[in-house]
Amino acid sequence: MNHGQPGLKENADDLTIRFLPFSISLKVKPGTTLLEAVRGAQLPLKTTCGGKGTCGDCIVKILRGASKKKSSAALPDQLASQGYALACQTEITESLTIELPEFEELAVKDFAASRFIEENKDNLSGVYELDAMVKSVELLLPSPTLEDNSGDLKRIKRELHKKLVPKNLECAYSVLKKLACSIRESKGRIKLVLFEGGETRTIVDVWPAQKKRMVCGIACDVGTSTVVLHLVDLENGKILSTASSYNHQIKGGEDVISRINYAQKPGRLEELQDLVVLTVNNLIRKAARSAHAALSDIYFASFAGNTTMTHLFLNLEPRFIREEPYVPTINDVPIGFSRELGLKMNKEAKFFCAPLVGSYVGGDITAGILSTPMLRMSEKISLFIDIGTNGELVAGNKEWLITCACSAGPAFEGGGIKSGMPASEGAIEKVRIKEDGTIDYRVIGDGKPRGLCGSGLVDLLAELFVHGQIDRYGKFKGKKASGRLLETEQGLGFLVEKGDQTFWGKDLVITERDISKLIRTKGAVFSAISLLLKNVGLSYDQIDGLYIGGGFGQNLDVENAVRIGLLPDLRRDKYHYLGNSSLLGAYLILLSRKNMDLVAEIAEKMTYIELNAEPGYMNEYTGSLFLPHTDIDLFPSVKQVFHKK
Amino acid sequence: MNHGQPGLKENADDLTIRFLPFSISLKVKPGTTLLEAVRGAQLPLKTTCGGKGTCGDCIVKILRGASKKKSSAALPDQLASQGYALACQTEITESLTIELPEFEELAVKDFAASRFIEENKDNLSGVYELDAMVKSVELLLPSPTLEDNSGDLKRIKRELHKKLVPKNLECAYSVLKKLACSIRESKGRIKLVLFEGGETRTIVDVWPAQKKRMVCGIACDVGTSTVVLHLVDLENGKILSTASSYNHQIKGGEDVISRINYAQKPGRLEELQDLVVLTVNNLIRKAARSAHAALSDIYFASFAGNTTMTHLFLNLEPRFIREEPYVPTINDVPIGFSRELGLKMNKEAKFFCAPLVGSYVGGDITAGILSTPMLRMSEKISLFIDIGTNGELVAGNKEWLITCACSAGPAFEGGGIKSGMPASEGAIEKVRIKEDGTIDYRVIGDGKPRGLCGSGLVDLLAELFVHGQIDRYGKFKGKKASGRLLETEQGLGFLVEKGDQTFWGKDLVITERDISKLIRTKGAVFSAISLLLKNVGLSYDQIDGLYIGGGFGQNLDVENAVRIGLLPDLRRDKYHYLGNSSLLGAYLILLSRKNMDLVAEIAEKMTYIELNAEPGYMNEYTGSLFLPHTDIDLFPSVKQVFHKK
Repeated sequence: MNHGQPGLKENADDLTIRFLPFSISLKVKPGTTLLEAVRGAQLPLKTTCGGKGTCGDCIVKILRGASKKKSSAALPDQLASQGYALACQTEITESLTIELPEFEELAVKDFAASRFIEENKDNLSGVYELDAMVKSVELLLPSPTLEDNSGDLKRIKRELHKKLVPKNLECAYSVLKKLACSIRESKGRIKLVLFEGGETRTIVDVWPAQKKRMVCGIACDVGTSTVVLHLVDLENGKILSTASSYNHQIKGGEDVISRINYAQKPGRLEELQDLVVLTVNNLIRKAARSAHAALSDIYFASFAGNTTMTHLFLNLEPRFIREEPYVPTINDVPIGFSRELGLKMNKEAKFFCAPLVGSYVGGDITAGILSTPMLRMSEKISLFIDIGTNGELVAGNKEWLITCACSAGPAFEGGGIKSGMPASEGAIEKVRIKEDGTIDYRVIGDGKPRGLCGSGLVDLLAELFVHGQIDRYGKFKGKKASGRLLETEQGLGFLVEKGDQTFWGKDLVITERDISKLIRTKGAVFSAISLLLKNVGLSYDQIDGLYIGGGFGQNLDVENAVRIGLLPDLRRDKYHYLGNSSLLGAYLILLSRKNMDLVAEIAEKMTYIELNAEPGYMNEYTGSLFLPHTDIDLFPSVKQVFHKK
Repeated sequence: MNHGQPGLKENADDLTIRFLPFSISLKVKPGTTLLEAVRGAQLPLKTTCGGKGTCGDCIVKILRGASKKKSSAALPDQLASQGYALACQTEITESLTIELPEFEELAVKDFAASRFIEENKDNLSGVYELDAMVKSVELLLPSPTLEDNSGDLKRIKRELHKKLVPKNLECAYSVLKKLACSIRESKGRIKLVLFEGGETRTIVDVWPAQKKRMVCGIACDVGTSTVVLHLVDLENGKILSTASSYNHQIKGGEDVISRINYAQKPGRLEELQDLVVLTVNNLIRKAARSAHAALSDIYFASFAGNTTMTHLFLNLEPRFIREEPYVPTINDVPIGFSRELGLKMNKEAKFFCAPLVGSYVGGDITAGILSTPMLRMSEKISLFIDIGTNGELVAGNKEWLITCACSAGPAFEGGGIKSGMPASEGAIEKVRIKEDGTIDYRVIGDGKPRGLCGSGLVDLLAELFVHGQIDRYGKFKGKKASGRLLETEQGLGFLVEKGDQTFWGKDLVITERDISKLIRTKGAVFSAISLLLKNVGLSYDQIDGLYIGGGFGQNLDVENAVRIGLLPDLRRDKYHYLGNSSLLGAYLILLSRKNMDLVAEIAEKMTYIELNAEPGYMNEYTGSLFLPHTDIDLFPSVKQVFHKK
């Protein structure tokens, strides 16, 4: 008799909670709170007050089903009327479908990367040339006769060789099947999609030329925190649409080490792969929809991700990446069929992943370098900095490339910061504190602010520092903040915007704890820059160009980045903000086969330096944990600002 | 109310009949006979008496279920006790699983083809060289260190290039997944299976070298009537086992035109492909079992089939093969993944199909030519004759090749002949009529005879002719046959063996109708030979070697083949009987990549001549419908035999 025992077995009266956008369901007993259900499904959901209904962090959207709400004090009426609820204050009374807003797709209007291309087409001329691996060509086959009745494929080959460099011709099996009918239906006027391998050309699709169809590709940055992609028209190189979202793998932890650990239990590696493929597929679908393209119009995908992300994306055991001597399974990733990864594209579509240098410098960096002129300037030395959840640096020129990595943390992508968020709709991307203490800011998409993205956080930190609201240790200076300083669950905080002016109805606040995280992140990046240059015996002056990539947002205010000591104090015209350089590189790879070779050359050339093994490491790092640095002479322009005051 | 209406709808009391080896089931009403059920399922089953229970042709084997037998008079007790039954005399009373003996796997002990190789290794030296597309190699990878921590794949590449010519290296996705663990489990001592493409080498499997596994391939002749394959050890070229069976496509008709017509209804093309793939898969399984190999040990398959068979095998629309101007979809068949066809082999396995010259000369012929020295003799002219359900001829040397086809019919493969059967266990392969009128014969496998295969039929026809039992029109000469001449349902017949001495308990008889079919077949072949030579202005004397392929059996008695006028009357040392030359060619292709190029060259070189369009065709053909020919001077050696008498 099972009666009376707390439900060890599933009961008929168990309720099902479906969590979107995941394909995860959970059975729960009536009376369970939604917060408990989310925890039960091992999905992440912020809560600061621990379920008391006061912080208003654990907002979810109920898409289907009714429930019993306890208190909604911390939830604005407007949100409640749209179906939002506080998970900790919602008791489950029937089966529900809910969506976690954290995992809503990120609405991204425009990208620094594509703007960078437009602005730098001339500089980038070497890489910005349309010669994609996937080509389309229209043919008119002469009618066969009794005297010339070669097979269809042979007749295609003959015509093809009149238009293109002759090559060994292969044909996908799925194309062979429709070849005969396509040719006869179109009276010989067909369109072919070709996959141009080195020595071999493969026909991957055919249709009557009278029918109009697109030939597209995907360029995608698979980040630890966020995934962003462009849908590209491969016939002219145009970016048709862009989509981005959090990487659903966040379930397995926020950084690569957590993900590798998470993958160690049986079935977990497959789960992580499913989650990132789900993320990418959702974005592909969204990008295709907004460009009126079909999934079957997409024939190629170019991915760039760090070494762990690339391994997890390919379902490869990531364990040895973090075990000495840190050997990944692959450096160069063989081109494969998209369907083998479960990607929803044309069934003959293939994918390319940017090559990996080693366990801690991956395809996001090799692709990133491709987007800089570094490899095309003979002796001028450039420095490339990519600030993501991990920070990676590359210095070098056409002859040599040296690289290192540092654990920056996701702070500048909005991760782990109370009011932080990625650079998408609703993010404050620019902040100014005016003399009268009021705050000006700009919101992506111009609506009510939902949080602060990287560039906003850099601005805020610099402004607080310059306006004397915080000291060089990042601590608030007494009560100077004229009513903006307040006590939060996470300690002292500075009010950026009041709840009645924000999208979620919550105060936007930066806490001392947030500031401390931001300083640790910028410190890690800056000390890595110092050490890398020291290692190759270069001074800051010898850097001719500094290329900055990362998820800060559209505009990174370089002045402010220098003021907080994130970037070295160089002549301002040496700075180039690339935005998402990994995505930019993936896009360039998609555009041209030459760039595939170039990115392989980049990976081959790079020498990796293990910073932790460098003698001065701890010294450098500790010195960087100040605003801007213990050694203010390293930042003459900042010194001057304070001198003036 | 449905009651009382004859069952238009399926009833709960319908019985299910499963037909093996097909994956076909049929619902029938109790009381239906098995013969009706077989017809209902559109499966072929011989019956001569039309269901009266007298001919004993419609034998089936009941594997599961009981039934009600009417008369078993025409069925030997011994067979009845083994579960055999006459379909027309069996009433269905419960659900049954039955097997059609026609579709039992053919038991083949040995093959002329492999013997031909052994005997001709020196002649064939150019093609008999082991350099398969699939290679295995053992590597010992040095342990990685902090200084040398390249990825696993990169380290493999480095070691591989010490052993093999450096090439672009790819790696199957399924291999990448197990690479890291295989290397670590084996302490770096791994075995790799490589697929050697032109410019690219692909790793298709990996395992710890301590584990012993085979690396095998399949060579397969996909014939219209029968399918035969060798399982080959790719590490030494040895044939490990051989299996053969009827092509299950026989359901769609006995010749290629019937199959093409059959495929025209929706779903039928897929059905035909399923049937041939089922046939091949059954044989692969059988061959693997008998060689103690796993299906996953098989990495490559080389197929040879005529143009229609190749199209149906690949699921390609065959319609245009028989519509003017007779254009197939393909000539050269791109190498593809076996899994795309549904073949049960290693999941990374690939397949190759011998190239097709045109709609009526296919891969069985190009592969067949590869097994002759035709392309390796500079000026000597050879003639190659392949007698299958279609007959194909090729004449030529290193410089030129000319080919034609004729509709021979399946008679010499045992098709459409009352006591005919393929050259497998139980077939009479050799016949002598002694002076006293008794008959000597040899049975494949030495058991009781089940029927006559091609070589036995050639012998029988020649012996009947030479001994005056039949005239030059193929008609029996009165009652001369000393008690062996009898009346059958199909007219006058000659008793080869009495039912009490045969496996099926039925008289083995050759009828006048059979003889007429055999004469039409040999006539078609001979007239094609005449016309082809006439077309290129060659006389019989100019032929230096005559290579005969086909499903006759182990030994074709060339003397008898000349006596019936199937083959021209040349010096006997010019004849070479190859046996299944299509299989032999497929085997040579499997052994060496050079042969792949060679067979492509053969296909490229061949000029096809349409015989039906030749002026003298009908004359030639009519002249050949005699034993040996209207013009006896064409056959001096036969003339001499009769002259002596």
